[in-house]
Amino acid sequence: MMDVRRLDTRDADFAAQLDALLDRAPEASPEVTRIVDEIVARIRADGDAALLELTQRFDRRSLQSAGELEVPKAQWAAAWEAQPAELRAALEAAATRIRAYAEHQKLAPFAFKDALGNTLGQEVRALERVGIYVPGGKAAYPSSVLMNAIPAKVAGVDEIIMVVPAPGGELNPVVLAAAHLAGVDRIFTIGGAQAVAALAYGTATIPPVDKIVGPGNAYVAAAKRAVFGRVGIDSIAGPSEIVVVSDAGSDPRWMAMDLFSQAEHGEDSEAILISPDGVFLDRVAAAMAERVQTLPRAAIVRTSIAERGALIQVRDLDEACAVSNHIAPEHLELAVDAPRALLPKIRHAGAIFLGRHTPEAFGDYCAGPNHVLPTSRAARFSNPLGVYEFQKRSSLIECTADGARPLAQIAGRLADAEGLQAHAQSARDRS
Amino acid sequence: MMDVRRLDTRDADFAAQLDALLDRAPEASPEVTRIVDEIVARIRADGDAALLELTQRFDRRSLQSAGELEVPKAQWAAAWEAQPAELRAALEAAATRIRAYAEHQKLAPFAFKDALGNTLGQEVRALERVGIYVPGGKAAYPSSVLMNAIPAKVAGVDEIIMVVPAPGGELNPVVLAAAHLAGVDRIFTIGGAQAVAALAYGTATIPPVDKIVGPGNAYVAAAKRAVFGRVGIDSIAGPSEIVVVSDAGSDPRWMAMDLFSQAEHGEDSEAILISPDGVFLDRVAAAMAERVQTLPRAAIVRTSIAERGALIQVRDLDEACAVSNHIAPEHLELAVDAPRALLPKIRHAGAIFLGRHTPEAFGDYCAGPNHVLPTSRAARFSNPLGVYEFQKRSSLIECTADGARPLAQIAGRLADAEGLQAHAQSARDRS
Repeated sequence: MMDVRRLDTRDADFAAQLDALLDRAPEASPEVTRIVDEIVARIRADGDAALLELTQRFDRRSLQSAGELEVPKAQWAAAWEAQPAELRAALEAAATRIRAYAEHQKLAPFAFKDALGNTLGQEVRALERVGIYVPGGKAAYPSSVLMNAIPAKVAGVDEIIMVVPAPGGELNPVVLAAAHLAGVDRIFTIGGAQAVAALAYGTATIPPVDKIVGPGNAYVAAAKRAVFGRVGIDSIAGPSEIVVVSDAGSDPRWMAMDLFSQAEHGEDSEAILISPDGVFLDRVAAAMAERVQTLPRAAIVRTSIAERGALIQVRDLDEACAVSNHIAPEHLELAVDAPRALLPKIRHAGAIFLGRHTPEAFGDYCAGPNHVLPTSRAARFSNPLGVYEFQKRSSLIECTADGARPLAQIAGRLADAEGLQAHAQSARDRS
Repeated sequence: MMDVRRLDTRDADFAAQLDALLDRAPEASPEVTRIVDEIVARIRADGDAALLELTQRFDRRSLQSAGELEVPKAQWAAAWEAQPAELRAALEAAATRIRAYAEHQKLAPFAFKDALGNTLGQEVRALERVGIYVPGGKAAYPSSVLMNAIPAKVAGVDEIIMVVPAPGGELNPVVLAAAHLAGVDRIFTIGGAQAVAALAYGTATIPPVDKIVGPGNAYVAAAKRAVFGRVGIDSIAGPSEIVVVSDAGSDPRWMAMDLFSQAEHGEDSEAILISPDGVFLDRVAAAMAERVQTLPRAAIVRTSIAERGALIQVRDLDEACAVSNHIAPEHLELAVDAPRALLPKIRHAGAIFLGRHTPEAFGDYCAGPNHVLPTSRAARFSNPLGVYEFQKRSSLIECTADGARPLAQIAGRLADAEGLQAHAQSARDRS
């Protein structure tokens, strides 16, 4: 048996039940904010000295100087060479596919002339220096290094600084190998709010960056929120989520494992299956009970499914799309006969996996699109990580002497209405 | 005479002097954060009751119910009709140009097939409901309504909710007229952190939105930071800035007024002129002393120029671009003979105005590009407000049965390396 809640949209209190299940708090807690604000202030005030002290304490390191925080490039190259050939080939295949997809995301400049002969346009430039946060220790994921670094490289970022904590000095060599492959420029073994603060403000050792991306725990998320404005950040990462919409034609065993592939990330992961077929949901529940036993991380999966999982019966696939849109999931599988027919009905999802042969795990590693995706309903308003996060636009305006005159009249009139006489005069100087 | 500092890149301490001038704090102060967190918590807990109480207090309103916070559409239409024909024509001309430019910014979906026959792509959807914050009272700017609402309309947003505080019940009718013209859907007379919180969480009266854009004071900025994650936000707006790069060929009187057009926004505005010609800088200083006397807002301009203004002499125009890139200004005028020659050297600027006939004031009102731009050096990493801020992307992956098999091998191998067996099994189910 496996503990998983069953919901039905025909239940009177379905909406309330669903919202209770989804009740995440993407905002930082006041307690976490307070601790993080202190850490950020210490790094701003004391730089390397504070960074060294906090790293020694939180990561149980024993270091003589901040210089030791940097991992020499020779060590990454050695880590790459030390990996089995088959793993290197898999990393290379993934990197190639991630790069090929990213190339499609590059922003293009534009320019056009208005009827007056003035030129209007938009320039695109790469960011200069970005920081990539990689969660550390044994659970450090090489796939995250590829997903964060490759779009930045494709965008043309000058320098990519990676930070990864090394608790107890432990560093995953596959993470170093992935950094070598992805074209990271420098690596520092720092983590937590102190790493985010060091990247935002710079220290004698850590160069200040223009933007910080990558997932982390609640302290990392709060630190990113705190330094936002001083530097850019990507979205605040929450626990991983999957919604699977399936008709009765999918293999229940596949559906079970697809749900588990999110659930195994952590006890707060969210895995939800939606189907119009109640018998099919029963069969998936049975498959879950059977297949969970095969998993090394079965305990995490059981807790996650019990706490945050659900099998939801809907009236039809249209209603399945509506429920999914309300959830606005990070990952959405459409494991149905005609997924393309449902696609126009999907308004909010970070990544959409079409058809029964497209498990979410492909997206985590090697399909090509980024695995850094909006969570906690942020797919309502934000984007997957992509090349466009490492580029920025500048507006362009170029008037001719003749083309300026009509604009001087319009701007002058509107500035008058706003009581801004220097604006009005500056415009009318050109008339 | 007019008090304005002179800097020279040949001075030994130039870098330190410039950084002292630029020393903004885009982060919220702990005191402001504390007050705002309380207001946000009150709105979350008590909804309309808290919103009404805070609005009565901060905006000196006297209202019976939250329903009175909404401005009926008939009142906007009447405000539009009441404007002079010439002002309506200027607003219409500006709106038409803003819309035409915004149309160029729409994100396009893409899709392609990989060598295995799998389809990879990116879908684009509009946000459902957005909130536009318009600063209130007498200083409410109709141009800001056009600049915030029109890109949202062009993006296809379903519903645009505008909030504008009405201190003492006072509401600028031109702001209502602009909302009528721009296609806003609903207007509520609320402001401050309580308005941001109401938009983020919703109350019985205020519908919750997916993203909040628009400038505001320090409390509004801190509230946007606090609700980020729950909703999307645009960048945190700081005081307005202009950098003018000019050779000796510009009219010093024009340059003086261009600087004033930023300085008049407020005492913390930043206006900097950079030129390789010291005599030209002297002539601009003289023109400033003369022309400031003509301005109704001369006192603000004098303070702003004295506190935050500078005339910077550089060795050549290349160095001017380097100094400008370090400043990463919101607005940059290139008032030189050959502005196109400098353009490739400009890395960081929100909007670039090319040539002597393109004053920044055109961009504020009617050139077409948005006047909501990154401030406080955020042009290093962020974008002008645009249509793309009201759209979002979803990744798309669609594998065939045959195309899935090679991906199953790669993903399986990488999941093994990360110790995620459910990922590995989910992938290999398709092999």
